[in-house]
Amino acid sequence: MERKVKILGTGKYLPDRQVTAEELESKLGLPAGWVVKKSGVQVRHFVTNETSAQMGAIAAQRALDEAGLVFSDIDCLVCASGTSQQEIPCTAALIQEEMNQSKSGVPCFDINSTCLSFVTALDVLSCSLAMECYQRILIVSSEISSVGLNWGHKESCVLFGDGAAAVVISRTPQNETSRILASRMQTFSDGAHYSEIRGGGTLIHPSEYANGREADFQFDMDGRKIFRLTSQLITGFVEELLDTASVKKQDIGLVVPHQASGMAMRIMGNKLGFANSQMMNIIENHGNVIAASIPMALHEAIVQEKVRRGDLLLLLGTSAGLSLGGLLLEY
Amino acid sequence: MERKVKILGTGKYLPDRQVTAEELESKLGLPAGWVVKKSGVQVRHFVTNETSAQMGAIAAQRALDEAGLVFSDIDCLVCASGTSQQEIPCTAALIQEEMNQSKSGVPCFDINSTCLSFVTALDVLSCSLAMECYQRILIVSSEISSVGLNWGHKESCVLFGDGAAAVVISRTPQNETSRILASRMQTFSDGAHYSEIRGGGTLIHPSEYANGREADFQFDMDGRKIFRLTSQLITGFVEELLDTASVKKQDIGLVVPHQASGMAMRIMGNKLGFANSQMMNIIENHGNVIAASIPMALHEAIVQEKVRRGDLLLLLGTSAGLSLGGLLLEY
Repeated sequence: MERKVKILGTGKYLPDRQVTAEELESKLGLPAGWVVKKSGVQVRHFVTNETSAQMGAIAAQRALDEAGLVFSDIDCLVCASGTSQQEIPCTAALIQEEMNQSKSGVPCFDINSTCLSFVTALDVLSCSLAMECYQRILIVSSEISSVGLNWGHKESCVLFGDGAAAVVISRTPQNETSRILASRMQTFSDGAHYSEIRGGGTLIHPSEYANGREADFQFDMDGRKIFRLTSQLITGFVEELLDTASVKKQDIGLVVPHQASGMAMRIMGNKLGFANSQMMNIIENHGNVIAASIPMALHEAIVQEKVRRGDLLLLLGTSAGLSLGGLLLEY
Repeated sequence: MERKVKILGTGKYLPDRQVTAEELESKLGLPAGWVVKKSGVQVRHFVTNETSAQMGAIAAQRALDEAGLVFSDIDCLVCASGTSQQEIPCTAALIQEEMNQSKSGVPCFDINSTCLSFVTALDVLSCSLAMECYQRILIVSSEISSVGLNWGHKESCVLFGDGAAAVVISRTPQNETSRILASRMQTFSDGAHYSEIRGGGTLIHPSEYANGREADFQFDMDGRKIFRLTSQLITGFVEELLDTASVKKQDIGLVVPHQASGMAMRIMGNKLGFANSQMMNIIENHGNVIAASIPMALHEAIVQEKVRRGDLLLLLGTSAGLSLGGLLLEY
């Protein structure tokens, strides 16, 4: 299960336009303080003209810069997002195009497990690195949530933001200790319809939009049901993940959770027995950026020097599906 | 690069409704013989009420049956399709639900490189098997092309069909020789817009459908440009793949190509110097089933006994992106 993989660099991109809690309260006719109390989000960013591929390309270039690499050092580009830019082709190919690398031949594909897409991609591709199929892989999560929010559903529409994050990984040099110790994912489709956008795929084609089905093309969630199912599962899930690697909670330097909501992270931390200081939290000024949340929080943890080489990190989250995912790594 | 992975079972599902070349010629006002001449497709299947997840679930169950396994033998379920059923969650979770395994916890996620999704998934997940992250993986490709065709674009709308195919893989038992010898993928986003559905994602939201943008939500392709770019690249691409494994063309028992079109496969075979008898061809009664084409052709090759244990197979195709992908395996 252990894979000797190293994170070489990380980068992020946020759109210029900031949307404050106050702006949303005014727009939605909510009392002052409601948005931060419910979501934990003071400021999120929304795209104006940026595309997913443009945001992803900038984050990717920044991750390369941080790693001291150039695009030609990379031999695989994976987009790990819950949303896609177009129905066809995959977003990774569009990111390659935005990076002006359209003749490079670097293979491009997408991996999608909604909010856990980055964790899934890191898990799966660490095996491809270990088997020497690739030398250095760029994983990019780029999300535009703002186009698909239901502004009539106040509980969910105040949570989300747009943005991108990217990570470059390679096999670990011989004399270093960076590695993935263990990973685990579980999907319980009992919760497949607890959070969804029903339309836009082959089930409800966009041609149905005008036929009174607008809501099918907007994000819909039942926060209470998600909370109930997740609460039943999360403790056992994390214990088994840590047991696999013979790691104790107190050994973990930092938990990098999916930034689902301020309250969700607080409850998760308490339930799992992690101190607040052990939980990386960027929700206040980013919001929930779907799959970009975990790599963006990881990037911020590195920039803010909350994590150093040799520290144990636990990437942890839930996603539509309903899935739980965790990955234990030595940075 | 070599991975000791074995295909344990395969399955397919086709919708009941058959759409003949004659039916399309009548619908589109085309002369008799035009459709087969241009596409090579005599009969394709279109869904009536089936969903992607339902088709995928049936194909998956058949693959399990063929392997002599039950769902609880599987510890990962990947949907490898170019289309998705919903925008959220991933289709794999919806297939798990359709298989009545919603409490199983088996991890579900999607991999997408359009028509090459199955080859990409098989490539990547063979590494996860080799690294012992999973024991047995179900890969399902399920495609509904019929909802997104542009009936005004005769060249493309006569090519496609709906359907699903599934494959179960595991590590190869010690005394057996099944393995992946080599794999290769290249993406040239110079061709990113040669075949696309521009709408449905974050770039052109379904709310735009009614604003005169119907065509953005339908499949659009420039067959001539795809042909030109592919022709330049395919020979060198395959030669390098075979060289990696020190395999010669005449050693390959069967090429299982993406069933892009009758003409595309004929030209590809000639250009690469494969005999017609070496090229698996199911386009006449299936059409181009996007990512399900390759696993469906593989399934048919096994059922029709065109491939036996120990034979060398070359899975080979192109996809939107524009990507080329190939995987050399000993069945």
